[in-house]
Amino acid sequence: MKELSVDTDTTNTDHVEDIEKKEAYDELIVLLENEDYEPFRENFLKLHEYEQGEFYSLLDNEDRDKLYRLLSPKEISDFFDTLTLSDEEMEEILTGMDARYAAQVLGAMQYDNAADIMNFLPKEVMMSFLALMERDDREEIRILMNYEDDTAGGIMTTEFVSIDSEMTVHQAMEHLRRVAPNSETIYYIFVTDINNKLVGIISLRDLIIADEDEYIGDIMKERVISVNVSDDQEEVAYVMRDYNFLAVPVLDYQEHLVGIITADDIMDVIQEEAEEDYYRLAGMSDEGSPLDDSSFTAAKKRLPWLIGLTLMGMITATMLSTFEDTLEKVALLGAFIPIIGGMAGNAGTQSLAVAVRGLATGDIKRASLLKLAMKDIFTGMMTGITCAVLLFIIITILFGQPVVGLIVSVSLFVAMTVATLTGTFIPMGMSKLGIDPAVASGPFITTSNDIISLMIYFSLANALMGALT
Amino acid sequence: MKELSVDTDTTNTDHVEDIEKKEAYDELIVLLENEDYEPFRENFLKLHEYEQGEFYSLLDNEDRDKLYRLLSPKEISDFFDTLTLSDEEMEEILTGMDARYAAQVLGAMQYDNAADIMNFLPKEVMMSFLALMERDDREEIRILMNYEDDTAGGIMTTEFVSIDSEMTVHQAMEHLRRVAPNSETIYYIFVTDINNKLVGIISLRDLIIADEDEYIGDIMKERVISVNVSDDQEEVAYVMRDYNFLAVPVLDYQEHLVGIITADDIMDVIQEEAEEDYYRLAGMSDEGSPLDDSSFTAAKKRLPWLIGLTLMGMITATMLSTFEDTLEKVALLGAFIPIIGGMAGNAGTQSLAVAVRGLATGDIKRASLLKLAMKDIFTGMMTGITCAVLLFIIITILFGQPVVGLIVSVSLFVAMTVATLTGTFIPMGMSKLGIDPAVASGPFITTSNDIISLMIYFSLANALMGALT
Repeated sequence: MKELSVDTDTTNTDHVEDIEKKEAYDELIVLLENEDYEPFRENFLKLHEYEQGEFYSLLDNEDRDKLYRLLSPKEISDFFDTLTLSDEEMEEILTGMDARYAAQVLGAMQYDNAADIMNFLPKEVMMSFLALMERDDREEIRILMNYEDDTAGGIMTTEFVSIDSEMTVHQAMEHLRRVAPNSETIYYIFVTDINNKLVGIISLRDLIIADEDEYIGDIMKERVISVNVSDDQEEVAYVMRDYNFLAVPVLDYQEHLVGIITADDIMDVIQEEAEEDYYRLAGMSDEGSPLDDSSFTAAKKRLPWLIGLTLMGMITATMLSTFEDTLEKVALLGAFIPIIGGMAGNAGTQSLAVAVRGLATGDIKRASLLKLAMKDIFTGMMTGITCAVLLFIIITILFGQPVVGLIVSVSLFVAMTVATLTGTFIPMGMSKLGIDPAVASGPFITTSNDIISLMIYFSLANALMGALT
Repeated sequence: MKELSVDTDTTNTDHVEDIEKKEAYDELIVLLENEDYEPFRENFLKLHEYEQGEFYSLLDNEDRDKLYRLLSPKEISDFFDTLTLSDEEMEEILTGMDARYAAQVLGAMQYDNAADIMNFLPKEVMMSFLALMERDDREEIRILMNYEDDTAGGIMTTEFVSIDSEMTVHQAMEHLRRVAPNSETIYYIFVTDINNKLVGIISLRDLIIADEDEYIGDIMKERVISVNVSDDQEEVAYVMRDYNFLAVPVLDYQEHLVGIITADDIMDVIQEEAEEDYYRLAGMSDEGSPLDDSSFTAAKKRLPWLIGLTLMGMITATMLSTFEDTLEKVALLGAFIPIIGGMAGNAGTQSLAVAVRGLATGDIKRASLLKLAMKDIFTGMMTGITCAVLLFIIITILFGQPVVGLIVSVSLFVAMTVATLTGTFIPMGMSKLGIDPAVASGPFITTSNDIISLMIYFSLANALMGALT
C-alpha cells in the first residue's frame, strides 16, 4: 500500500511535486498558522479528500492541533478515510487528540476503516473510544471488529443500500435519495427478504432505465454472485476482477446480507497481495511500506530471513568442505562454484515465480501435475543445454581446459533441469500442506539449489578426477 | 493478467471446481451439441458475462462454431469483453469465424478492447475487419488504435456520458436514460462546453439527490482531476487508487475530453504492473500468462536472461580463477564461496525490491538520496554484523579455524553492506538515465554482488595468507 511520507518535525511542502498543488498547500499553511478560520475552511474543504489527506500529512503536530480546532470531526473523518498511515502513526495521531474528538472522528469514518484502526489500538484506548462514541457507530464498528483483517468480513462495509422486493421503482428511488449520503455506494442496490436474506440485486443503471411503476422483484437479477464473510480477501479480489463488479455482497453462514465490498477497497487488496508475493520473492516480509522504515526497522524485518539463509548457507559450506581434497588438487574448479550455484538458483527462481503466482491466482489448480512436471523438465533441459554449450565453448577457449569445461557444463545442465523442477514442485507441495507457498521465497529456493547443484558438480568432478590430474 | 486455460481439443468441464457451475455447464454443452436452440439460448444468456466466457473457453472448436450459429454478434461480444486470452489465441478465434460475423463481434465489443485486439492482428486481417464494420464503430475503434498500449489513451473507452452545463437535472436524467445502454459507466457524468472542453463533473449520486430544476452548471464540481492521453497507465492507476475514483476523464493536449478510464480496467493494470515487477525480479519477462506457455515458449522467454547471466557468471569465474593459487593453498576457502556470494545477493535483492517498488509507486522521489544512502549503510551494517558474528561462531566451532572464520565473517559484513547500497542505487541510477529500473532484476544484482563480494573475500584472504599457511 502506498503511504504518505510523514515528517512531523516541521510543516513543509518540499516533497510536493505538482507546482499548482504546492502553491495551494503553501497558501493553506499560511492561513492555518494565522488561524484565519473562514478563508482556511473555504479553501481546504474545496480540496478532494485525498488532497486534504496529503495536505494533512505535510503538517507538523502543532499545525495539526490547529486544524482540529478549525474542522469538525466529520470533516476530519472524510480525509482520514483516505490516509494510509501505518498503525503506529495512526495510534500516535489519535491518542494525541482530545479523546472525545478522536472518538467522534472514528465514529464518522467509514466503519470498515474505523474497525481496522480500533483493532490495532491498545485495549484501554480502544475501549475508551468505543465508550465515547455514539451508540449506532459503536455497534456497527464492534461488529466489524470481529472479523479477521484479511477476510471479506475484514474489508467489507455495512453502509450499503438494501431494499424490499415489493417496492416499486419509484419508491426505491425515493429511498435511495434519502440514504445516499450515508452509503458507500448506491450504484448497486441489494434486495432482501424479511429475514434479511439476499434475494436479488439491481444496479442503479437498470433502476434508472426502468419504468417507475414496475416492482423491484420483477426487474431485479435473482442470480447474485456473493462472497462469505470468512473468504480470503484475495479470493474476493479475483471474483470482483473477473466479474468486473463495482461492489459484491458479503453473506454470513446463514446467508444473511451483512455487508458489501467496494471496488476501491479491492484495488488496494490486489496491490497488497501482489506486493506481498513480490517482497517474499526478495526474501523479506512486507508489513507497511518498507520505504518509510528506519534502518533499524528495515534490519529487523530482513534479519529473520538473512539469519535463516546464513544457516542454510552453512549447510552448503559444510557439504562443500567435504570436497576439500578435490579442490586442493584442481583449484580451478572453485572458480565455477558461483556460476553453477547461481544459474541453478536463477532457473529455480524463474519457475518458482510462475508457480507462486499461478497458485495465488488459482490458475495452477486447473493444470495437471504430470503435465506441469513434463513441461518443467523440458524447459529446464532446453535452457540448460543452451547455457551448457555456451559455457563449454567459453571455458575451452578461455582456459584451454575441455575436461573442466565438460564437468562444468554437464553439471550446469543437470542442475538447471533439477532446479526448474524444484522451483515448481516445492511451492506446490507447500500449498498442498497448507503452507503459503510464497514463503518458499526466492532465496530459499536459491540456497536449496546451491546445495543440490554443487553436490552434482563435485560428484562429477570427483568421478572424472583421473582425467584432471 | 489471469487467463483462462484453453484446451480446444475436446470440450470438457474437468477443470471447473464449483460443482454447481460444472453441472450448469455440462447441461449447456448437451443442449449446444444437440443444437437445442431455444433452451440453450435461454440458459446461456442467464449466465453472467464472465461465466459465459468461462463456458466458451471450455468448448472445442467444433462446439464454438455451433455457438456462433446460435448467438448474435452482440451476444458474443458481451462475453468476449471478459476474455483475457493471449493475442495469438484471439487471432486464431477471430480468423476462424466468418469474416463479416467477426467484424460485427469486434464492432459490438467495448471499443478499447476491440482496438487492443485489432492492433495485434495481421494488417490485412485488421483492414478487412475494419472494412466490414459499421461506420460508427470503425471510426471509434480507429481513433483508439492510435494510442500506445500502456498509456491512458490505450486503456480508455470513448463510451462515456457527457452533457451540457446548461441542462437541468431533469433533462440530464432524461439524457442519461437514453444513452445508458451504450455507456461503459453512467455513474460519473462529464460536463463539456461547446468546444468539447471538460468544464466539470457530476456523479450520478449527486444528480439523484439534486432538485430536478437545478442547472448542471450550478451543482457540478468544477475542479476535475483528469489524466492526459499519453500518461503511463501505471500513473493513471495510482491516481485512481489514491482518489478512489470509479472513472477518470482523459484529455488530449488541447484539453478536449476524449475518453474515460473505468475502475475495472484499472484493477487489471494494477495487477499487471505489480506482476511485471515480480517477474522481472525473478529474472524473466512477463508477456501473457507464463503458466499457459508451452515449455518451448517458456524456454524462449527465460533464455535471454539466463544467457546474459551465464556471461556475467563467467566474469565471476574468470575473476575467481586469478585466485587459483590462494585456493590451492587453503582449499577450505572454496567452501565459503556460495555463502559469501549468496548472502550479498540476498541483501542486495532485498534492498533492490524496496527501491524498485518505491520508484514504481513514486514514493522514492520524495525521499532524499543522502538519507536513503545513510539508511542503507546502517541497515547493511546491522544485518551484516549479525550474520557475520553468527558465522564466525559457527565456523570456529565446526571447523576449528578462527582465522578462516574471521576472513569469512569480515568479508560477509563488508559484502552485505556494499550489496545493500548497490541494491538501492543501481535501480535509482537506471531510473535517472531513463531505463526502467525493474530491468535491474534480482539475478543481475545478485551476479554483480557475486563479483564484488568474492573480490573482497579473496583479497582479504590473500592479505591474511600468512596466518593461514
